Amino acid sequence: MEGAQAVREAFAYAANSVHELFVTEQTASRHADLLQQAEAAGTRVSTVTPRAAEMLSETKTPQGLVAVCDTVDVPIAEALSGRPRLVVVLFEVSDPGNAGTVVRVADAAGADAVVFAGDAVDPHNGKCVRASTGSLFHLPVARARDAAEVFDACRSAGLRVVAADGAAEHKLDDVAVEEALTGPTAWVFGNEAHGLPAELTRAADTAVAVPIHGAAESLNLATAAAVCLYATARIQRITCRDDEPRRTS
Amino acid sequence: MEGAQAVREAFAYAANSVHELFVTEQTASRHADLLQQAEAAGTRVSTVTPRAAEMLSETKTPQGLVAVCDTVDVPIAEALSGRPRLVVVLFEVSDPGNAGTVVRVADAAGADAVVFAGDAVDPHNGKCVRASTGSLFHLPVARARDAAEVFDACRSAGLRVVAADGAAEHKLDDVAVEEALTGPTAWVFGNEAHGLPAELTRAADTAVAVPIHGAAESLNLATAAAVCLYATARIQRITCRDDEPRRTS
Repeated sequence: MEGAQAVREAFAYAANSVHELFVTEQTASRHADLLQQAEAAGTRVSTVTPRAAEMLSETKTPQGLVAVCDTVDVPIAEALSGRPRLVVVLFEVSDPGNAGTVVRVADAAGADAVVFAGDAVDPHNGKCVRASTGSLFHLPVARARDAAEVFDACRSAGLRVVAADGAAEHKLDDVAVEEALTGPTAWVFGNEAHGLPAELTRAADTAVAVPIHGAAESLNLATAAAVCLYATARIQRITCRDDEPRRTS
Repeated sequence: MEGAQAVREAFAYAANSVHELFVTEQTASRHADLLQQAEAAGTRVSTVTPRAAEMLSETKTPQGLVAVCDTVDVPIAEALSGRPRLVVVLFEVSDPGNAGTVVRVADAAGADAVVFAGDAVDPHNGKCVRASTGSLFHLPVARARDAAEVFDACRSAGLRVVAADGAAEHKLDDVAVEEALTGPTAWVFGNEAHGLPAELTRAADTAVAVPIHGAAESLNLATAAAVCLYATARIQRITCRDDEPRRTS
């Protein structure tokens, strides 16, 4: 794991999972709080040269701070336990920066879990971890190859499976769609270039498009996810009944 | 300008502004439609080697297609003419990819104009053009160094100036905020790392935060803009009165 913000979140949310910290002298002096956290957690700290930090880094602009951590993904049944109301499924998303940004948005919107489905990027990819700015530690993340299995697991958990599809007839702000989003919802987003395959859109309970009011052809993955997830969070929070308390894990 | 999608939009929306097209043989065979458009527009087409296309490119993954075009920005008074209802001001946004993505989102949400204010990235930066996927041609884009001047121009155009500020007391889904967003609105977004300076937030008519429902610290610029602009578009479209027709430029 790279970068001060991500490592800070790892210490805050899963201190026991951080095994070793490699840091340059310059970075150590800038982030004394992190070294204190490492000491408190009993994590080994090794000072390295800028050149070594660069070699350890997967990014073009290394921050001089790399941590060795346990992986964070959990079985899908665990990720979807506890009456989830808002879940994100990323199907064959291939760009790690996009994937990490969507995890961050899902966290911000109060989602209960993110599932990486199909031939998707590894959530532990360095760029994904960095783009998530710590959110990978804030909500359960699961991986599953088979999308049909993921849909089944979502339905078993009481979630309605909604495919995000720019070509869908139903738009996000249709009254009927807003009504449907009041219930527990799993949003499924496809690959950034190809979207969702038609058979997966058909396998979902419904398909919904973000309306395009101007002349743009589409939105990119992260901004489309932001609009869908925040719209759902708003609707669910307005209509949340007292007998359906939100999950507080 | 680089990339097939951006050049296609340039021909569609401003064919006279495209002066010359440089294209590799391989790319030309893949995008015969573009060469036809160039011929129809009387644009000179020059076949170049992949190496030359790479030298002309500002990006890491050149598509073998570069066009020489006029700049697109217009004076701010022109950008804000015609009773705008939704405008985006980007203050000192420095990453061209972020800026281009926000122009694309503004277009998709039906915004009437985008203003690059302060020491912001050049909207004609190659990465910005590419990230906008043609949206730079869909709505007027203006540049202005002085933010106070931009705020004045927005108010003269009948717009309420709303600063996007993660620390603001008022949240996007507060009833009073939703009520206020029914009127013509200029959203102001700050630099991706530093946000808006305090004096600019104070100079706005109000400041509004995207609510964070989970444990994330914040959203990134493009996703925050997507949420704010789509929320405003939804509210304005629900409440749009017949005596206030939308601009149809």
